Amino acid sequence: MLLYHHTVSAPSRFVRLLLAEYGETPQLVEEMPWARRPEFMQINPAGSVPVLMSEAETGIVGAYAISEYLDETRGPIMRERRLMPGSPLERAEVRRLVDWFLSKAESDATRPIARERVFKLQMTAAEGGGAPDSAVLRAARGNVRQHMRYLGWLAHSRNLLAGDRLTLADLAAGAMVSVLDYLGEIDWGSEPAARDWYQRLKSRPSFRPLLEDRVRRVPPPSHYSDLDF
Amino acid sequence: MLLYHHTVSAPSRFVRLLLAEYGETPQLVEEMPWARRPEFMQINPAGSVPVLMSEAETGIVGAYAISEYLDETRGPIMRERRLMPGSPLERAEVRRLVDWFLSKAESDATRPIARERVFKLQMTAAEGGGAPDSAVLRAARGNVRQHMRYLGWLAHSRNLLAGDRLTLADLAAGAMVSVLDYLGEIDWGSEPAARDWYQRLKSRPSFRPLLEDRVRRVPPPSHYSDLDF
Repeated sequence: MLLYHHTVSAPSRFVRLLLAEYGETPQLVEEMPWARRPEFMQINPAGSVPVLMSEAETGIVGAYAISEYLDETRGPIMRERRLMPGSPLERAEVRRLVDWFLSKAESDATRPIARERVFKLQMTAAEGGGAPDSAVLRAARGNVRQHMRYLGWLAHSRNLLAGDRLTLADLAAGAMVSVLDYLGEIDWGSEPAARDWYQRLKSRPSFRPLLEDRVRRVPPPSHYSDLDF
Repeated sequence: MLLYHHTVSAPSRFVRLLLAEYGETPQLVEEMPWARRPEFMQINPAGSVPVLMSEAETGIVGAYAISEYLDETRGPIMRERRLMPGSPLERAEVRRLVDWFLSKAESDATRPIARERVFKLQMTAAEGGGAPDSAVLRAARGNVRQHMRYLGWLAHSRNLLAGDRLTLADLAAGAMVSVLDYLGEIDWGSEPAARDWYQRLKSRPSFRPLLEDRVRRVPPPSHYSDLDF
């Protein structure tokens, strides 16, 4: 398996976590989505990551299609460690949360921050590179606080985000948090329940490769890879 | 069943089409998402539509969770009329297209146009109502042309968007097109294959209620409800 991803893309990290939980070790290829590389556009005309090249050499495009594909093809043999609950209504709740963290939070918080602080460093001037826009950052940071408050509320009311077992919802939220934490954007003091939940999550073996990620010219804060932060 | 929706929300229209194809006639409640009505926020803290109240009186939130829920609970008895193909890779392709039309096109074309031309008429000044922003409209209209070109390419290369059978992909694209067509935003002359595909789609009985929709102060062009436009 081969995964086209970007280091600070939360949907990409979500799929890396999923694959690790399913015991798969894909080859990783970092793609700069804004570059619109012709060979990559052939595989995904949207130009976005993640894209998983499956056994059949067909590209599976986007976190939604990939996570459902993996659940359909790998889920049943995972038995009680399956990352989706059994009942349709519980599955709907997991999907609501995945959508929250990888669509809503992605578009109003995670992606704008990743774009302003990382992508713009990696882009040429013609591609839109340059200094971060402080108004965009300010708005996105306000949204980060709201999403962390909601995550704190979920982590406080439930053992794991969608109930008692680990599901796609935890990995989606974990992927988002790990990007924001890499960039030092999370105020851990204000959300103790979210902090406790994330500490448990980041000690899973599936998280280790994410904690070893480094972006050139953007070092993470020292607590980023610390399991007892 | 009860569906919270908005008339010019493509994800809401997608769910209305799905329910009609599954033979369900939900009670419809139009929700103004920007109003953040407290009773509605209790059901969906994101404040967004669509939300389907199921048999169990639990809210199923968002087009992604609802469409998968309906496929899981209604799909198997639909047999060969099921709106999802049988193989995981074909299902992945359907989900890629649903995501394209209801996430990508929604955020860069459909929702900005609906917001500028309809929501802002329905909002109070405090809620952000007022005149449309012409720069936002211009950018979104450029994206509409791109999405229609891609739709035309798909409709030209395949009988239906994800292959030979009607799937969620057609209904997702149809929901998007119907919103834009209501607002007179589609140049039908330039995409004959898309036009032929949409003409076939809109003569399905499931489309009839959408073609009867009317928004106060925003009448549709005369071809909107014409089956032989």
